Order: sequence, then structure tokens, then C-alpha cells
Amino acid sequence: MTIVAEADPNKHNGVQHRTAEYQPRQSLHTWLVGRPLATADAGHQTIGKAVGLAVFASDALSSTAYATQEILVILAAGGAAAFGYAFPIALAIVALLAIVTISYEQTIHAYPGGGGAYIVSRDNLGELPAQMAGAALLTDYILTVSVSISSGVAQLTSAFPALDPYRVVIAVGLVGFIMLVNLRGVKESGLTFAVPTYLFLVMMFVTVGAGFFRLLTGQLGTVINPPTLHSLGEVSTVSLFLILHAFSSGTTALTGVEAISNGITAFKKPASHNAGITLVWMSLILGALFLGITYLSGHIGAVPSEEETVISQLTRTALGGRNLIYLVTLGATTLILAMAANTAFADFPRLSALQAGDGYLPRQLTYRGSRLVYSRGIVLLAVIASLLIIAFRASVTSLIPLYAIGVFLSFTLSQGGMARRWHKIGRLKPGEEVHEAGSVLRYDQGWQWKMIVNGFGAVCTLVVMFIFAITKFHDGAWIILVLVPALVFIFFRIHQHYKELARSLSLDSYGAPPAIRRHRVIVPISGVHRGTLAALDYARSLSSDVTAVHVSIDEAEGERVKGKWERWGDGVRLVILESPYRLLLEPLLDYVERIAALRQPNETITLVVPQFVPKHAWTNLLHTQTAVLLRVALLFRKGIVVTDVPYQME
Amino acid sequence: MTIVAEADPNKHNGVQHRTAEYQPRQSLHTWLVGRPLATADAGHQTIGKAVGLAVFASDALSSTAYATQEILVILAAGGAAAFGYAFPIALAIVALLAIVTISYEQTIHAYPGGGGAYIVSRDNLGELPAQMAGAALLTDYILTVSVSISSGVAQLTSAFPALDPYRVVIAVGLVGFIMLVNLRGVKESGLTFAVPTYLFLVMMFVTVGAGFFRLLTGQLGTVINPPTLHSLGEVSTVSLFLILHAFSSGTTALTGVEAISNGITAFKKPASHNAGITLVWMSLILGALFLGITYLSGHIGAVPSEEETVISQLTRTALGGRNLIYLVTLGATTLILAMAANTAFADFPRLSALQAGDGYLPRQLTYRGSRLVYSRGIVLLAVIASLLIIAFRASVTSLIPLYAIGVFLSFTLSQGGMARRWHKIGRLKPGEEVHEAGSVLRYDQGWQWKMIVNGFGAVCTLVVMFIFAITKFHDGAWIILVLVPALVFIFFRIHQHYKELARSLSLDSYGAPPAIRRHRVIVPISGVHRGTLAALDYARSLSSDVTAVHVSIDEAEGERVKGKWERWGDGVRLVILESPYRLLLEPLLDYVERIAALRQPNETITLVVPQFVPKHAWTNLLHTQTAVLLRVALLFRKGIVVTDVPYQME
Repeated sequence: MTIVAEADPNKHNGVQHRTAEYQPRQSLHTWLVGRPLATADAGHQTIGKAVGLAVFASDALSSTAYATQEILVILAAGGAAAFGYAFPIALAIVALLAIVTISYEQTIHAYPGGGGAYIVSRDNLGELPAQMAGAALLTDYILTVSVSISSGVAQLTSAFPALDPYRVVIAVGLVGFIMLVNLRGVKESGLTFAVPTYLFLVMMFVTVGAGFFRLLTGQLGTVINPPTLHSLGEVSTVSLFLILHAFSSGTTALTGVEAISNGITAFKKPASHNAGITLVWMSLILGALFLGITYLSGHIGAVPSEEETVISQLTRTALGGRNLIYLVTLGATTLILAMAANTAFADFPRLSALQAGDGYLPRQLTYRGSRLVYSRGIVLLAVIASLLIIAFRASVTSLIPLYAIGVFLSFTLSQGGMARRWHKIGRLKPGEEVHEAGSVLRYDQGWQWKMIVNGFGAVCTLVVMFIFAITKFHDGAWIILVLVPALVFIFFRIHQHYKELARSLSLDSYGAPPAIRRHRVIVPISGVHRGTLAALDYARSLSSDVTAVHVSIDEAEGERVKGKWERWGDGVRLVILESPYRLLLEPLLDYVERIAALRQPNETITLVVPQFVPKHAWTNLLHTQTAVLLRVALLFRKGIVVTDVPYQME
Repeated sequence: MTIVAEADPNKHNGVQHRTAEYQPRQSLHTWLVGRPLATADAGHQTIGKAVGLAVFASDALSSTAYATQEILVILAAGGAAAFGYAFPIALAIVALLAIVTISYEQTIHAYPGGGGAYIVSRDNLGELPAQMAGAALLTDYILTVSVSISSGVAQLTSAFPALDPYRVVIAVGLVGFIMLVNLRGVKESGLTFAVPTYLFLVMMFVTVGAGFFRLLTGQLGTVINPPTLHSLGEVSTVSLFLILHAFSSGTTALTGVEAISNGITAFKKPASHNAGITLVWMSLILGALFLGITYLSGHIGAVPSEEETVISQLTRTALGGRNLIYLVTLGATTLILAMAANTAFADFPRLSALQAGDGYLPRQLTYRGSRLVYSRGIVLLAVIASLLIIAFRASVTSLIPLYAIGVFLSFTLSQGGMARRWHKIGRLKPGEEVHEAGSVLRYDQGWQWKMIVNGFGAVCTLVVMFIFAITKFHDGAWIILVLVPALVFIFFRIHQHYKELARSLSLDSYGAPPAIRRHRVIVPISGVHRGTLAALDYARSLSSDVTAVHVSIDEAEGERVKGKWERWGDGVRLVILESPYRLLLEPLLDYVERIAALRQPNETITLVVPQFVPKHAWTNLLHTQTAVLLRVALLFRKGIVVTDVPYQME
């Protein structure tokens, strides 16, 4: 920063504009997260389709690593024969996936600036639905991290059972690592994560391909040495409830489908076009993999287990044992699950900054760190997700009931909002354009069909949300049903505060600024020493009306202060307040209140408190922090300022 | 407090003396601890011999409730036959008690102003031994509370086994109750506790008397339905180590003997005389009870147990069952143990205030609360003792190894100090008096004999301390062997801080006070609103040299601030610092540093920070606390003052 020497302060009156060239220093922080990026660099941080698939689709794709297993865990309560229902359930889920994909494809083109559920609800449904969508999505992103990382660690412990006791530690460590990668910025994250995503896709298609090849050639047997079966309840008969319960668990395969629509602006131009193509590719791959895995798992008799994942059982059966390709596949699965968490790390901070910008979350979340990312949101996400992993001992099955409600609530709101939007567009004249609430409504002759598509999607996802909430209520879904409204309430309280603040600080209808005419200074002193004299000197530079006040607990001490003041006080008046009950703060506050009651209009009172600054911070415990106590006590009194004059110990 | 109206500030220059009549208000606090007492009331709070025995002797007397049992717990490892060693061990302990009593009797007369181990060591041995004694005594007082309360609760659960699961809760509740009684003041504590002490003495003499009567008439059998035996180790043969180990446990009977010598000034005049008589009575009662209980316990075959205390077994055997007198005796035992804790509540705050007055503990501990007691020390003791009770699950046997080392270290230092004192007195001429280090040395013709008495006492207690430390090292004594030196180190660090502070604040060799000639004011602003204008107004009342500084992260926002400033800034210069790396605090600090580097001699810089005060404290989380951050960052810079001008939200 270039500052010209200013000997004469009057020379520079008026508004000045200085160009700052502030260069942050090299530190551990820059080593971990990289050198600072200037705000002007922001535009260049965009990504292509291939990298976009890696960054935004890993969440959706990686859910194939646990969705089948979570269906089987529920079906296990219906006995081994119930496993036969897994593939029909998977087919229903893929149909749902198709509906949601078509619906979101329309959103991406309608909202080229980024059309997550939050923005779509805000623009078309209003503030309350928008905040519901926000609350649902934020909880969902947190759970994406917890579930994906927990599942990734489960793959790892399937390959290396010796690591089992360290599940939680490994999971939390992984969250920390992904947090660091994200603090470095979005482009580097994309590159870092592109290779493993494609490795995962290749390995999964190899596994599933090998499985089908062996199936057709009759070489595919069943799982050798299957692990202990894990079931959630007593074995009973297959009921509709059980089927719907299993279906609910399987819908976690759809989590993450919305990620691309939130992050359109991260794509290279034309962003909507690229994002839309990426979405379709993602859904096709996801559907194919999910069906393939579920079909083969049923055929080989894979069982849900806490010891070995279904993916591990399928891979070693399809590839003929725990060989090198098996290890590479499991490793790639772990990696893509880690990257799924990364999707949340891209979206959570972006959404919370959006909500903070609208005044529904603390404004600090809009602050972009030295690497142009919303660092505070990234750290917040890492901390909450880690706490969840610890609380649920990194168990996917325990976390799943909390997961998909938020996702389906946001799907419903997003698609409902889109349907409402098409309805509005249908009332425009051909060729007409209306700017409304931040987006452009342009007449579209296919509006009816598009409204039906989005409306159908909304109804389907709403029904799924209810099925999920009812079948998994006892397993943990109730937590989310309590949490989301609580969050919405908090968001509105925050909003109310910011609105009130803006109103009370507003300069509209504000008259002439007040002018302070008199300035009365009070210096509380505990004794007469260098610190006191420094404060006194400062006080006299503020005003000619200075009073020193000593609260006397001990008469002899009071006399000593009086005697010393006569020598050092330089004629400033000293008031000694006797305190027979040995209270310090109360008599002083009482005195200040009385002075304040007598003051004239436009008179201000400043308390100048001497404070020594010791060399070591711990020694602050050895002193009563009078200035702090006074500041807190007088915070709500108008026209009283407390200032402490630090006196540095040599 | 009477304050005359002061319209003209110049009328009252010079030193003034006001009589404060500050009357604290009625509140929950006054209801719990009583109305405030004025400092002038301090002298009247003294007690007679009978009440003094209740207040100061309860610690020593109450140890008869567990000392025998703790000897038996250790001997149990030598098999049932080893219990025969209990009575000879008790005899040795009573001999030690006699030595210590005679030694302390001399101290009480030599130190009429209160001759605890701390003062005696300080006056005669120097600072290091004094602080060792202080550390030993403070830990000992804490353990007195924990051990006595735990044993009291054990008596209670012996009588009412149903209460056993609530041991810890009851113990912590009792500590809280005793804390409250002590916060009310020493005289009331004495009265509150006199009745139960004498009840305990009567009941114990009835029990022991009944026991001996039945023994002599041949009616005393053995314990009916004895509880499960509790032993600390594998059964082995009786060894010298085992005997010494049991002896160490038994020496806890001596804890509390020093209490009277610490509290001489609490006695009615002549204080030394009354305190001395109380000490002798206390030791006689203690010795008699301890021997009686130990002898009878051996005779009836009482066993150490976690389920039922030895006292309970003895009482029901001597009194013929669990009748009403049994219940009264157990109740009285519980009560006296609670009072033993009270002894520590009288001594811990007194000693810590003494050490704080010498500058070895935080000065805040010298502050006497509204009821003339050292309230902070009382609360501190209650908190630490409660934590120990929780950590050791209120088990006396677990706490005992931590207990007596501190006691014997303080005995040794105290008596060693007295021996040194007699040695000095022996070098005076007959009739000569010397004032030295706060006490009067007066020639005494019996000095040689008295020196031998104190010296012998010091050697005996030193030997016992080593026996205790070695035999109980693994059981927990090591904690104290680490803690006491650590505390001494901390005490000296605190002392060093206060010495340095006094030196750097001293006005000796201090020249003319500095005078501030120029005052430069910087107002950091995030925007232009009512809060900013209030701060600006305040800043202009301090100095004509005011600069507003805006750190611009967003160019558009910077332009907005500039535009608004032209309208509202009233000609005050505005500096806009561009921050391309989106840092807020760093460019501002950098700017202040540069201004500071350019300043002239006797120029001071004040940062006036606008701060809004929201109606609800939680909303502070929604704002960056710039003033706090700036104050911390600039605390160590000379001549820079940070002041925040609160703007109250309406």
C-alpha cells in the first residue's frame, strides 16, 4: 500500500482514493491453501464438461456404492427370499431418476445463472418455501459428506479388515483433507478429482461387464465365504411397508442429481448447454450402474453386512477373487465417495453465501477467502460433518434415515417452483419478455408440456418424501422433520435482525447529524502509578473537564492515593468514593449514572480506564479486568463511551 | 452516595472526599448469603473455646471415622490375622499425635497472631519453604473437603444402603451447602456447627463406653452379618512394608491438628491461651477415641468394606443392633465429617488470601465479599473439591493416598521453622527483644528444651512423610509429589509478575509526566449510516485531525461509500483502501502502522470504531467484532488507543 507522508493533516481534506497493494506474507496458511488470488481472477475459475462431471456428478454416481446395500439391509427383515424384490425396486428408482432428470434439464436452461432449489423457490414460490429449500439443502449437503465418507471408509475396511477399529479416525481425517483441497479453490479441486472419477467409472464398468460376461457364459457363481448378514429388525413376512421402506433407502441413489443445477456458473460457456449435457450423461451412467449392480448382487447372493460391503462381494465374485483389479476397484470406489463429499464442499458454501447475501444467514458467510472460495462455509461444513461421523460411528446404515428427506423436499420445491413459472409464462403474449424477481420470463410455446413435466416431477418427489418420512420416522427421519422447521425459524430471526438493523441505521429521513458540545471525562483509578498518569494524560488531551475517581475499600489506601495525587495529579480533581461493603464496580457505576443524569444536552461522557498490558497473556488472570466489566455494564447506556488506555509493561 | 450537583466543573478542582452511602439492593444473593456487612464490623467476628473446638477441631476429630478403617483395608492384604497389628499401629500414631500437639502448643504461644505452617516457614526459613508449605496446605485443605464429605456419605449409605447409587450427587450437594454456610460468615458457621460436634462426641463416647462395658461384662460378641471384605491387593504374608503402609493410612488421623494454630485470631481474647487449651483438649479427645475405636473394632472382628463402614459395624455391635441410637450415632458422624470440611472452608480462603497478599497468588483472593469472608477462595475450594469427588467417585480409600503427604510436609516445615526460631532466641541476651520479619523474638530461658521438642517433632513428621510417600507412591501419592513443586513454581511465576509490574509502574525516579500534544483520530467505517455518523461526531469532539478509512473489497461498494460520504461526511477526509485479496483487518492495520511510523513526538493515535449494540446478545454472532479484533491486534503498540462508540439499536 502506498501512503504518502502526511505532515500537514489539512492538506488532504476531502475524499481520497488510494490504490492498495497490500501483499500478504508467506505463512503456513499460504503453504496449505496456496497463494492468495485477487478478486479480479474470479472469472477464470470455470470448468469444462469432463471436469464438471467429476466435480458435480461424483455425489450422484458414488451413491451406487451404497444404495443397493441399503435396499438389501431393509429387505433382510423379510428373509432371504425378500432379496428378490431388490431389482424391481431399483427399476422404480431409475424411473424416478428419469423424471427428476428431465425436470432438472428444464431448470438448467431456464436458469443459466444457477438454478438450485433455493433460487427457483425464491423466485417463484416466495421467501418461506425458499428458506425451507435452503434448510433442506444445507442439511443434505452435510449428510452427503458424512454418508459418502463413511461409505468410503467401509469400502476400505472391506478390503483391509485390519483397519476396522480406525473407521472414525480415517473418516474424520478424510473430511479434513477434502476441506483443505477445497480451501485451495474450485479449479484445482476439479483437476485433483477428475482422474479418480474416471478411474471409478472404468473399474465399475469392467466389474459389471465381467459380471454379465460370466453370467452369460454360465461362469458366475455365488459369493464365496459371504460375511455375516446384517439386518435391522426381526425376520417377518414381506409387507408393503417393508417394500416401501426398502424403496426409501434406495432413493439415496438420487441424492446429488441437483448438484449440477446449483453450479451452472462454474461451467465453461455456454454454461447451460454444457451443464445440461453433463446432467444427462450423469443420469444415464448412474441408472445403468445402479441397475447392473443391483441385478448382479441379487444373482450372486450378496448379503448386506457391516463387515464387507456389497460392492466388495460383487467385485471379488465378478473378478474371480481378491486380486489386484479387485483392490483397484475398491480403491477407486473409496476415492469417488471422497469426491462425492467434495460436491457438497462446492455447494454448501455457495448456497450459504447466497442465503447470507439475502440476509438469512450471518453475513460473514458471504466473505470469500484468499483463494476466492467461501472459506468459512467450507470450514463450517467440515466441522459439522465430522461431528456427525463421530456421533454415528461412521455407520452408513445409521446415517441413511436422515439423508434423503432434505433432498426430496428440495426436489419438490424446485420442481413446484418451475411448474408455477411455466404457468406464469403461459399467460404472456408470444414474444413478450418480463423481468421479474431477478429472472427473465420469456414466452415459450411449449409451456404447457413443460409445466406438466415439472408438475409431475414435483408430485412424484413429494410422494417419495412422504413415503420416506413415514417408513423411516423411527429410524431417525424425525430428527430432520424437527431440524428443518427449526432452521427455517432461525433463518427468519436472522433476517428480522438485519432488517431492523438497516432500519435503525438508515440515513433516509435522518436530520442534521448530532453535534457533541461538551465532553466530560472520568478516570477510575485504583492507585497512582505510571499507568494512571498515562491515562490521565490521555484524558486531558480529550477534554479540559476531567475527574479522577477512586473507590476506597481500605481507608489507609484511600489516604495514600490522596497524598500521591496531590503530588502527581497536576490539579485535576479527584473524587474518593468510600465503599464500606467493599464493592468496586457498583459505587463507580452509581457515580457515573448520577453524573449522566445531570448532564446537559449534547454532552458526552467518556470513561478512560488505565489498563496495563502484561508481557504474557496468562498474567491477565491476575488482574481484575475493570475496563471490560465497565464496558459491558455501560454498553446499553446512550452517550457513554468506555475507552481503555493500554500501558505496556517493559 | 451523596453527590452534589456539579453544573460548573471548574468549581470542584483539587482533591475531594465524598462519603459513599452505597446500599446494595435486596436480591437472591442477599437471601442466600445474608445482608452485607460493613468493613467496620470485622473485629467482632470472634469465637470462644467451646465454639472454637467445634469449628477448628472437627477435622481432626472426624478422622476417627475413617482412620481405623483405612488401616484395616491395608492390613487385609496380610490375611485376617494381620488385623491384630491395627491396635499397635494406632498406639504409634497416638504417640506421634502427642509429639505434634506439644510442638504446636509452643507455636500457638509464639505466634499469637496466627502461626500456621505458612507464616512460621516464611518468618524463619524463607520464601521457598514458605511457598512449599503453602502449596502443601492448600492441596491438603482441598482433600480434607473431598475425603471428609466422601466418608460422611459412606456413613450415610451404611445406614441407608438404598442411597448408595447417589453417593456422588449427595457428596457434591453437601459441599455446595457448606459453601453457602461459609459465604454467610465465620460466626454463623460456628453456631451452626457447634451442636452437631458435641452430639458426635457424646454419641461416640456412648458407643465406645457401651462397647467397653459389654466387653468387660462378656456380652460383646462379634459383628453379625459382616459386610464383604474389601482389600487392596492379593493376600500375601505380613511384611514390614505392609505394616508401614497401614501406618501411613492411619496417620490421616492427625490431619487437622494444625487447624487451630492457623486460626488463633478467630478466638476470643486472650487468643493464644484459649487456642492452646482448645488444642490440648482436642488431642486428648482424638487420641482416646481413636484408640478406643481401633481396639474395639479388632475385638468384634470388624472388616473393612465398601458396603458398610467400620464405625457402622462397631456401633451396631456395641449398641445391640440397628436401633434408634445407632441411627443417631451414624447421623452425628456424617454431620461431624461435613463440619470437618467446614474447617477447610475456614482455612483455605484465609491462607490463600495471605499468600495473595504476599503476591504469590492472584490478588483477587484478598478481596473480602459482602459478608466479610474471602468469598472467592470459598467458591474456588468448593469447585475443586467437588471435581475431585466426582473424579474419585466419592471413594475414601481412593482419595487417602493423596491426602496426608501435604499435611506432614507442612508439619515438618512448621516445626523445623520453630526449631530455627528457638535457636535464634538462644543467641539473644536475657530480657532482649528483637523485631524480625513480622514477629517478635523474645529471650526465653527454656529455649534449648523447646528447640529439642520442635526439632524432634520435625524429624518425626519428616520420617513419616517419607514412609507415606514411599508406601503409597503407586496408589496416588505421586500425584502430590508432582503437584506441590508445580504449584510452588506457579506461585513464584505469579510473584515475579507482580514484582515486575510494581517496578514498571513505580513513580520513583519518574520524571515529568509525558504530555500529549497532538491527537490524531482514525475512524474505520464499513459503510455510511447513523452508527458511522455517531462515531464521526465523537471523533471530531476528540480532535480536529480526523480521517475516516474504508477498506474496499468490492469496488461498487467503495463508490457507494464515497458518494454517501460526500453528502454526510461534513468535509472530513476519507481514505479508501483497496483490498484486492478481500482482507479487512490487515490493510487497516497496515495503514495504522504507517501513520504511526510517521507520527511526531507526543502524538497519540486513537481509533474510533463504530459499534452497534443490538437488542439481543445472540445477534452479535451476526457481526464481525471489528473493535475487539483491532483492540487485540494493537494492544502491544505504544501510543495507540482503540475505542468503540456504541450505537444502540432502537
